[in-house]
Amino acid sequence: MYLSKLFIPITKNLPSEAKIKSHQLMIQTGMIKQSSAGIYSWLPLGFKVMKKIEQIVREEQNFIGAQEMLMPTIQSSEIWKESGRYEDYGEEMLRIKDRQGREMLYGPTNEELITDVFRTSVKSYKSLPQLLYHIQWKFRDEIRPRFGVMRCKEFYMKDAYSFDLSDEDAKKSYNKMFYSYLKTFSRLGLKAIPMAAETGPIGGDLSHEFVILAETGESQIYADKRILQIDPSQYKFNDVSLQKMRKDFSTIYAVTDEKFKENEFNKQVSKENQMVAKGIEVGHIFYFSDKYSKPMNCLIDDKDGKKTSVKMGSYGIGVSRLVGASIEANFNNNIMKWPKTISPFDVVIIPSISKNNKENLIKAENVYKELKKQNIDVLLDDVDENMSNKFKKHDLIGVPYQIIIGSKSEKDNFEFKELNSKSEILSLEKIKSKLKL
Amino acid sequence: MYLSKLFIPITKNLPSEAKIKSHQLMIQTGMIKQSSAGIYSWLPLGFKVMKKIEQIVREEQNFIGAQEMLMPTIQSSEIWKESGRYEDYGEEMLRIKDRQGREMLYGPTNEELITDVFRTSVKSYKSLPQLLYHIQWKFRDEIRPRFGVMRCKEFYMKDAYSFDLSDEDAKKSYNKMFYSYLKTFSRLGLKAIPMAAETGPIGGDLSHEFVILAETGESQIYADKRILQIDPSQYKFNDVSLQKMRKDFSTIYAVTDEKFKENEFNKQVSKENQMVAKGIEVGHIFYFSDKYSKPMNCLIDDKDGKKTSVKMGSYGIGVSRLVGASIEANFNNNIMKWPKTISPFDVVIIPSISKNNKENLIKAENVYKELKKQNIDVLLDDVDENMSNKFKKHDLIGVPYQIIIGSKSEKDNFEFKELNSKSEILSLEKIKSKLKL
Repeated sequence: MYLSKLFIPITKNLPSEAKIKSHQLMIQTGMIKQSSAGIYSWLPLGFKVMKKIEQIVREEQNFIGAQEMLMPTIQSSEIWKESGRYEDYGEEMLRIKDRQGREMLYGPTNEELITDVFRTSVKSYKSLPQLLYHIQWKFRDEIRPRFGVMRCKEFYMKDAYSFDLSDEDAKKSYNKMFYSYLKTFSRLGLKAIPMAAETGPIGGDLSHEFVILAETGESQIYADKRILQIDPSQYKFNDVSLQKMRKDFSTIYAVTDEKFKENEFNKQVSKENQMVAKGIEVGHIFYFSDKYSKPMNCLIDDKDGKKTSVKMGSYGIGVSRLVGASIEANFNNNIMKWPKTISPFDVVIIPSISKNNKENLIKAENVYKELKKQNIDVLLDDVDENMSNKFKKHDLIGVPYQIIIGSKSEKDNFEFKELNSKSEILSLEKIKSKLKL
Repeated sequence: MYLSKLFIPITKNLPSEAKIKSHQLMIQTGMIKQSSAGIYSWLPLGFKVMKKIEQIVREEQNFIGAQEMLMPTIQSSEIWKESGRYEDYGEEMLRIKDRQGREMLYGPTNEELITDVFRTSVKSYKSLPQLLYHIQWKFRDEIRPRFGVMRCKEFYMKDAYSFDLSDEDAKKSYNKMFYSYLKTFSRLGLKAIPMAAETGPIGGDLSHEFVILAETGESQIYADKRILQIDPSQYKFNDVSLQKMRKDFSTIYAVTDEKFKENEFNKQVSKENQMVAKGIEVGHIFYFSDKYSKPMNCLIDDKDGKKTSVKMGSYGIGVSRLVGASIEANFNNNIMKWPKTISPFDVVIIPSISKNNKENLIKAENVYKELKKQNIDVLLDDVDENMSNKFKKHDLIGVPYQIIIGSKSEKDNFEFKELNSKSEILSLEKIKSKLKL
């Protein structure tokens, strides 16, 4: 893609309410544009990052055997009345009357709807376990939307639901998701800490938040810092190993402020291991047994032909929020550097161009063609602008690798730079192989 | 995927309102489940087909240089008041009041929102032309939703928007989309006829509907049947060839009933070439110049520095509707056969299984593994059910190729069948290469 053709409205005018870096940067580099309070359009640059995150989330859900489907955004109030949450949910639920006066709503979450799908579809324990997920827009009518995509009204979320015959089986499903989440965040280049958490309006008695460390986080976290040293890749994808994994994480103290008690913290964690920090919640998993299946009459025939309420859990990842969270975690020294796995482009070519001399631009176009042939997703900055401005711009756009075509390039050797590192002069062949690593 | 693990609630109970084949089949094979009137959940089988259609649409949009983005579902009423459509749109627009009493709506289409994005982002003719698109859920509060996903309330649509400096340039953008649509429908295995059409509530003076022939279609079409013989692949992707393409299609008579006049039809089309048929609209493109940019003050500096309203067009494809339309076009003699490009699986293995003899199932599992290694997306019907029922079921699920493992299979030779064709005994190697074609 040529930068001059890319729809990327870079701006210096920041809205006054953009107080945190991710919000500022996403506006500055034209990743998003606000359409009304807490509601955003995703422009091509932001959209590409979000889609890459979505795809990694998807692959790791598929890996543990979850099946993708898609529930609608608009739901009938009927099922929420069955579960008892229609009144409870409060004003964050966007309530709608359709043209015939029926009470509808824009789904803030999908426990009721998936339970409704399931109860009419599955009758026997033989079809269990089941893991279903969808990646769909949700709406929460926040009274004070803020921090850009981090706390907005319309947001993109992966939510999964597990269905099992027994508590014991259900916890196996829970562990699979726990594992999937650790793998997902690791592929996104994030260090996520699973924390015992309150279950809140979803309900249930087992719950973990996945929190990444960031100064701008809304969650206060208290942890034994050794939890950061557990390597998730040591666990295998089987019930025994996954059970051990959850136990290993659970025996090390890590809670959000909702569960925090000072005397417990001091008793369980030695002073030198105590970590008190801010974090951003990027995932939340719940096991709530028959909280929805019982009132909604979602019954399964067990092995003896007896009807029993199916045991359920739910598992959310904030896909759109992760775009912002990733900026909060990676922005440093006025430089944004996207992790390779979710960068909007693999590499950017930055030629020094002047009105009278297009030689560098021609060289750049040839390099561009060569890289394209290798299926490398490359951005070419063909804008007629001085190099210092270009570098500042690309410090914000955050493509992690740069090929600079100016005074230092000669023949087939070019200046190659990883953001936050020194540049080196390399042949195109060497650059190609570096990019393909 | 093993069929016993796939979340595919096959049912024989059809709702009384399912009157057309696509609606019936999608319920029968568990592709969708209604959640309320005109609103559906997409279960894994239906979801896979829809995603494949979406991906083909996306690739053909990208091919002509359109950039993907994503606008939100919930819009402010303000921009619709600017364009003047807020009052005009009528009751099909789902109007919403948020918790602060602001008038919002669920977007039925996005001309206003994209114009708002554009006017704050692009100021100069140098950034033109631009083609932007998104694939997003829309809502139309149909008074009488019917025909399943064909006329539902919440539907998935690709809508693109073009921005040009002059009418002449804008028509080049229009032609590119025209070409993209012909290619898209052809890859989907559909024969689509572009028809001169009324512009309706979108407005403008140049418009084509893309209609596929199907007895259950809602559109009445009148055409010179020679239009079916124009091969779109003869045109090249350049302005001159695309201009000729649109001219070639336009000079042959083809209209929907809105534009139909009997005397014109008889004058322009000889009796033997007259075709009167039903069709399904699967795409609609519009050129409407400054209909939105003018009232919404979306101005561009032209070459002389003079401000002028940008010239716009919009281009829709009903992605969710295409799933149903494809069934209407392909279901025949009680057999559904998906086109290879959008089939939920590449091939299904159907072993004859009995309680006492699992030999065929073991063979089937080995074949399954072999095909998986080749990245062939294979379904294995491991359900303990008699073969006659299995065949009936797969006539509805519609995977176009079957490997039947029963009495006729011996060692490495298996019965291989393309739906609607005779079966043959082939080696696994031959089957692999047939599937990879």
